[in-house]
Amino acid sequence: MASKAKAAVLVAPRQIEIEEFPLPETGEDDSLMRVEACGVCASDVPLFTGKVKSEGHLQMLLPVILGHEIVGRVERLGKKAAERWGVKEGDRIIIERWIPCGHCDRCYAGDYRLCVRKIDGYPLYYGGSSTKLTPSLWGGFAEYMYLHPDTVVYKVSDDVSAELLPQFTPIANGISWVTVNGGAGIDSRIVIQGPGQEGLAAVIAAKEAGARLIIVTGLSQDAHRLQIAQELGATHTVVADQEDVVERVKEITEGQMADLVLDVTSGASTKPIELAVDLAGQGGTIVLAGFHNNQPVANFVAEKMMSKTLTIKGVWGRHRRSVKAAIRLIESGKYPLHKLCTHAFPLEETGQAFKVVAREVDKDALHVSVVPGHI
Amino acid sequence: MASKAKAAVLVAPRQIEIEEFPLPETGEDDSLMRVEACGVCASDVPLFTGKVKSEGHLQMLLPVILGHEIVGRVERLGKKAAERWGVKEGDRIIIERWIPCGHCDRCYAGDYRLCVRKIDGYPLYYGGSSTKLTPSLWGGFAEYMYLHPDTVVYKVSDDVSAELLPQFTPIANGISWVTVNGGAGIDSRIVIQGPGQEGLAAVIAAKEAGARLIIVTGLSQDAHRLQIAQELGATHTVVADQEDVVERVKEITEGQMADLVLDVTSGASTKPIELAVDLAGQGGTIVLAGFHNNQPVANFVAEKMMSKTLTIKGVWGRHRRSVKAAIRLIESGKYPLHKLCTHAFPLEETGQAFKVVAREVDKDALHVSVVPGHI
Amino acid sequence: MASKAKAAVLVAPRQIEIEEFPLPETGEDDSLMRVEACGVCASDVPLFTGKVKSEGHLQMLLPVILGHEIVGRVERLGKKAAERWGVKEGDRIIIERWIPCGHCDRCYAGDYRLCVRKIDGYPLYYGGSSTKLTPSLWGGFAEYMYLHPDTVVYKVSDDVSAELLPQFTPIANGISWVTVNGGAGIDSRIVIQGPGQEGLAAVIAAKEAGARLIIVTGLSQDAHRLQIAQELGATHTVVADQEDVVERVKEITEGQMADLVLDVTSGASTKPIELAVDLAGQGGTIVLAGFHNNQPVANFVAEKMMSKTLTIKGVWGRHRRSVKAAIRLIESGKYPLHKLCTHAFPLEETGQAFKVVAREVDKDALHVSVVPGHI
Amino acid sequence: MASKAKAAVLVAPRQIEIEEFPLPETGEDDSLMRVEACGVCASDVPLFTGKVKSEGHLQMLLPVILGHEIVGRVERLGKKAAERWGVKEGDRIIIERWIPCGHCDRCYAGDYRLCVRKIDGYPLYYGGSSTKLTPSLWGGFAEYMYLHPDTVVYKVSDDVSAELLPQFTPIANGISWVTVNGGAGIDSRIVIQGPGQEGLAAVIAAKEAGARLIIVTGLSQDAHRLQIAQELGATHTVVADQEDVVERVKEITEGQMADLVLDVTSGASTKPIELAVDLAGQGGTIVLAGFHNNQPVANFVAEKMMSKTLTIKGVWGRHRRSVKAAIRLIESGKYPLHKLCTHAFPLEETGQAFKVVAREVDKDALHVSVVPGHI
Repeated sequence: MASKAKAAVLVAPRQIEIEEFPLPETGEDDSLMRVEACGVCASDVPLFTGKVKSEGHLQMLLPVILGHEIVGRVERLGKKAAERWGVKEGDRIIIERWIPCGHCDRCYAGDYRLCVRKIDGYPLYYGGSSTKLTPSLWGGFAEYMYLHPDTVVYKVSDDVSAELLPQFTPIANGISWVTVNGGAGIDSRIVIQGPGQEGLAAVIAAKEAGARLIIVTGLSQDAHRLQIAQELGATHTVVADQEDVVERVKEITEGQMADLVLDVTSGASTKPIELAVDLAGQGGTIVLAGFHNNQPVANFVAEKMMSKTLTIKGVWGRHRRSVKAAIRLIESGKYPLHKLCTHAFPLEETGQAFKVVAREVDKDALHVSVVPGHI
Repeated sequence: MASKAKAAVLVAPRQIEIEEFPLPETGEDDSLMRVEACGVCASDVPLFTGKVKSEGHLQMLLPVILGHEIVGRVERLGKKAAERWGVKEGDRIIIERWIPCGHCDRCYAGDYRLCVRKIDGYPLYYGGSSTKLTPSLWGGFAEYMYLHPDTVVYKVSDDVSAELLPQFTPIANGISWVTVNGGAGIDSRIVIQGPGQEGLAAVIAAKEAGARLIIVTGLSQDAHRLQIAQELGATHTVVADQEDVVERVKEITEGQMADLVLDVTSGASTKPIELAVDLAGQGGTIVLAGFHNNQPVANFVAEKMMSKTLTIKGVWGRHRRSVKAAIRLIESGKYPLHKLCTHAFPLEETGQAFKVVAREVDKDALHVSVVPGHI
Repeated sequence: MASKAKAAVLVAPRQIEIEEFPLPETGEDDSLMRVEACGVCASDVPLFTGKVKSEGHLQMLLPVILGHEIVGRVERLGKKAAERWGVKEGDRIIIERWIPCGHCDRCYAGDYRLCVRKIDGYPLYYGGSSTKLTPSLWGGFAEYMYLHPDTVVYKVSDDVSAELLPQFTPIANGISWVTVNGGAGIDSRIVIQGPGQEGLAAVIAAKEAGARLIIVTGLSQDAHRLQIAQELGATHTVVADQEDVVERVKEITEGQMADLVLDVTSGASTKPIELAVDLAGQGGTIVLAGFHNNQPVANFVAEKMMSKTLTIKGVWGRHRRSVKAAIRLIESGKYPLHKLCTHAFPLEETGQAFKVVAREVDKDALHVSVVPGHI
Repeated sequence: MASKAKAAVLVAPRQIEIEEFPLPETGEDDSLMRVEACGVCASDVPLFTGKVKSEGHLQMLLPVILGHEIVGRVERLGKKAAERWGVKEGDRIIIERWIPCGHCDRCYAGDYRLCVRKIDGYPLYYGGSSTKLTPSLWGGFAEYMYLHPDTVVYKVSDDVSAELLPQFTPIANGISWVTVNGGAGIDSRIVIQGPGQEGLAAVIAAKEAGARLIIVTGLSQDAHRLQIAQELGATHTVVADQEDVVERVKEITEGQMADLVLDVTSGASTKPIELAVDLAGQGGTIVLAGFHNNQPVANFVAEKMMSKTLTIKGVWGRHRRSVKAAIRLIESGKYPLHKLCTHAFPLEETGQAFKVVAREVDKDALHVSVVPGHI
């Protein structure tokens, strides 16, 4: 085993440097993982571009190894960690980005994804803790990662291509947002706004849950994505900058409108949220999961919410059962997930990977991974 | 029995005339009620003042007998109606404003309060159907009312003062909004924005449900109302135009903020809704029940909803179990509801009753009734 | 149109006579339907054989036209009925067995399937009201049926074979029991005990809902049924009189046992219910939907329920949304439902149809219909 | 501080010996608590008397320091433990009996009370781990207790009498069973079977939740307990060996029967569970929380569950929110909980305390504590 690990470190907005870090010593409780692949999440893009709400927050974070859709191999394993996680050296694992404290109200309530643990003033989670925080290797865009004792670990199959596995994140999100939060099931009418990786994963979740109408909206530039949506199970697609979305959904649903509207668009426009209130039918639910640069929504009117008895839910991450379900779905080979894996980059090209996800380079990009062992 | 019934008819904005209508003939299925008292709901005020969203809607409605918080006596009872409702002539009853069709998806789903029945193009509900629709006597501000076969009827006690009973509406609303929709219960932290009759009824509901912190916000002009709130069980009151509401709630809840924020303010300002997002704690629920002249909310930001995993629910009316609970609560005498009955007017002064509820006359007015038999 | 309708009347246990009844006059509110097909429900068998709990109940019922899984054509339609149901003469419809009063607590709560309406002392529902109750034609094993004003009606497609449509009952039951009552969804582990028409429909529901493990148990005599179960989507079948069901389920679920166990066996043996407690995993749900001649369950031990925090639900019928979903599923042609339609009999052979469902004749029988127009 | 701790050790059924154990060394992660009071739970009695299901289980456990309703002071506190729990030396705390691993599916799902952690083959929880497991001081009937790093800690007020505080267990159970599991709230009709400490705490929970009818059943020997029930808020009491419980509940509920029936009786008779099915009304819930020596229930009939669409839930322990609510309720002084504290014994008389709880000595005993500092 090497004594050092290369990592792609974000040192300033749009500036990534490959650095080497010594492999940390580990004891009974903690461990070391060799990264096989790490997906680039859309939520990483603002950190890369520097378009974040708070300049101060970014400065505290930098330099940082991003990357939190991580699959790898247990390289070195503490004895207690082995018991705790039920794995052995060499096993392939997926890890959650959260490193929950286990002792706050949220952890005790099963909401460990909402734990706000900090260490020495730094927020602690994979793909989001500065390299200044010992032992630095907290992100997935690296050859090796340090595994904290409180890491949430899932054992996964050896029989699946490494690049596919980081999709556990969007798929688990989709399952949580569509079913756990959104309450969709057999015969549901669902509108998914935004055909990116989260939206396409939501199509899979909606299909699995037995939805009858799965309507995906996108823009003209999303033609390829909308076609993939149909291959995955979308019953209808709507091009929002060419068609009247409300009219189309009215027609498709025979006037009943949607039981569930999911916003997974991203960017400054909050128009999709405004639209969601019109797309939802009586008693419908709107799930907000898209980031919009903290821009306010225009025309949010209470009376519309009241007369249609709508529910709006802001959601954050995924539930453990959804992650387990997502892993099994990937392992089952039931959906053509390789079609969503449009790009895989070696560690050295992590910057390029970000640009692709930001759609600066290739409009048709979907799920993008960094594969450290890539030659 | 008289052969005619006097009624207070709204013929144009702010213009009420006392008219006489012949008592309708009734058969096996329908019936006639003598009105004992009818409360003035805050939602009646815009109809009286003419400040409604749609001019056309108002024109279709006029002339109309308003009034939908109705208690009275069964005067003449069809045989089938007797079976259906389980009452006999002379019984005191309360009726719902809705006259559900019983055969649409909403009715079959138990959501009869959302039934959108129309007859001859007119929406059909008590206190909201034009006198042009035979047999005219559809509202509570009248000596007698026609009871349609599909009326939803509750038998109530003879032992309670008639003026108290119309409060079943706000109290049932409070129970539905605080517990059924809002999910509050033992140990909950609740913020109620707006100390009008709906807000005060919500205090009763929160108290009954075992809430630990019941914080009511109002304005300087609401001093009397806030004092009543405390008598009913509010643990804290905040004067929103003099204090920093967010800071006060942070202090009172020791930083946890509210499980439930209920907006029952009314008027053009949507500030309370904007505030609600800040007042709610992690995983909290916001219930929207206040009318705001269809004004949009400023600064509604998706990211805030997401990072706190908030839920916003628009609500409409009350559930049947809540009405039954409200009636029992009124009958029990447990709360000093007579303090909320600030005004009772004879039929002839129905216009004055509206002005009082609109707070044009008396800032301290709370629940106001029209009592047709009043001398 | 004929002036009389033939019907298969149960006059005494195991004794069916073809009688003719005059077609009833109908007015604005009620209607007449020509029966295309009526399924034989397993719950009809005890009435046919006379093996019911209460002799008195049966005597009050007889003579009776059974049959409540009904599809037919609107033959003659009252004007108000047309508005209420949104259909016109000639339309193909499915009707629910319940004729809810619309005005009791259960109806108002959306539980119209639990309405206990009686007329003149007789319980009123299709396929369960005596011919002594005017106008006699209350059951589906007849050429024509009377449609009471309170009938619950669903319009269905003309493009599906009539024999398939009565399966809306077991499929809607399956959807309600597996998802609404049972809470199953994506990744669920489900055990379905009993591969009869209810059990097979539950397989479809479980498949649609995204269940990962669908384990169906049956007896040696059910070999054909278990094979159909696999064709419909069961992932595993277990022969309960040859294999150790608990051990097999432990093996298949890798020790986690089932999230949901559904009992749709029928007959005196309550062993499946006893077994269900062992088959359910921590936090699991058991849904009871099988009739067992009112025999008590042996070895029902509270401590087992407590240490595994189990929930047991007794269920009754189906929800409206499930019926709608079932109709759409049948219309979609997604599942090979014709394989479940093993027998169709003319009206004259209704008795034989009962014997087939009772498995007195053909162990491999599944869904059986009486088709009055059958030549 | 002493260097040794006295403890009441159960060495064989009905045989308790006072032994001394060295105070364990503690580091950064773990801590030491001085016990102020420890309640005797009814579930401890079978261990004391030896009337347990499995002889082997008991042998593995012995010798053991029982006691899991524990209040005390932080005596010596590790640095990391201080951060984790948010307490300092000298603080008064309550601890849960469970010592959850924090990393199994149940812990991650918020069900840490169901964690089945073992250490070296021994189950690990307070008041239930053998003294053979280092460092022995795992139970509340001792002067000092060891606090494992994974202890679940709640800070409590100094201003309440120590003997009152162990009641957080039954009160939190009551809140969980009545509201979280039982779904009761405003206007509910509740039957509580068994007026012991769990039953009386359930009365408090039902009262707090706004129940309208709180009916407590007991036996003739429970006259004193039933009177306390009324003082706490029970609206009716029924003497089950003198009155027809079903008839009485029918009368009190005007034929509607109960929304919720809670069984908190204990002992070999399973009659209360049988009765519960008859006491529950349509759509009702039955919560099973009483231990019955693993005896089967007679006459458990599926059809009764089905025709009334009943739900039965087996429950285990309490939720964290319920514990917090219970602590606040005790601190508030709202209920006369001192009336329930019928006995307090010094450590040396722990055996007598068990006999009192087993009702071998005093039929009127309710909550019994051991107070190690008692003179």
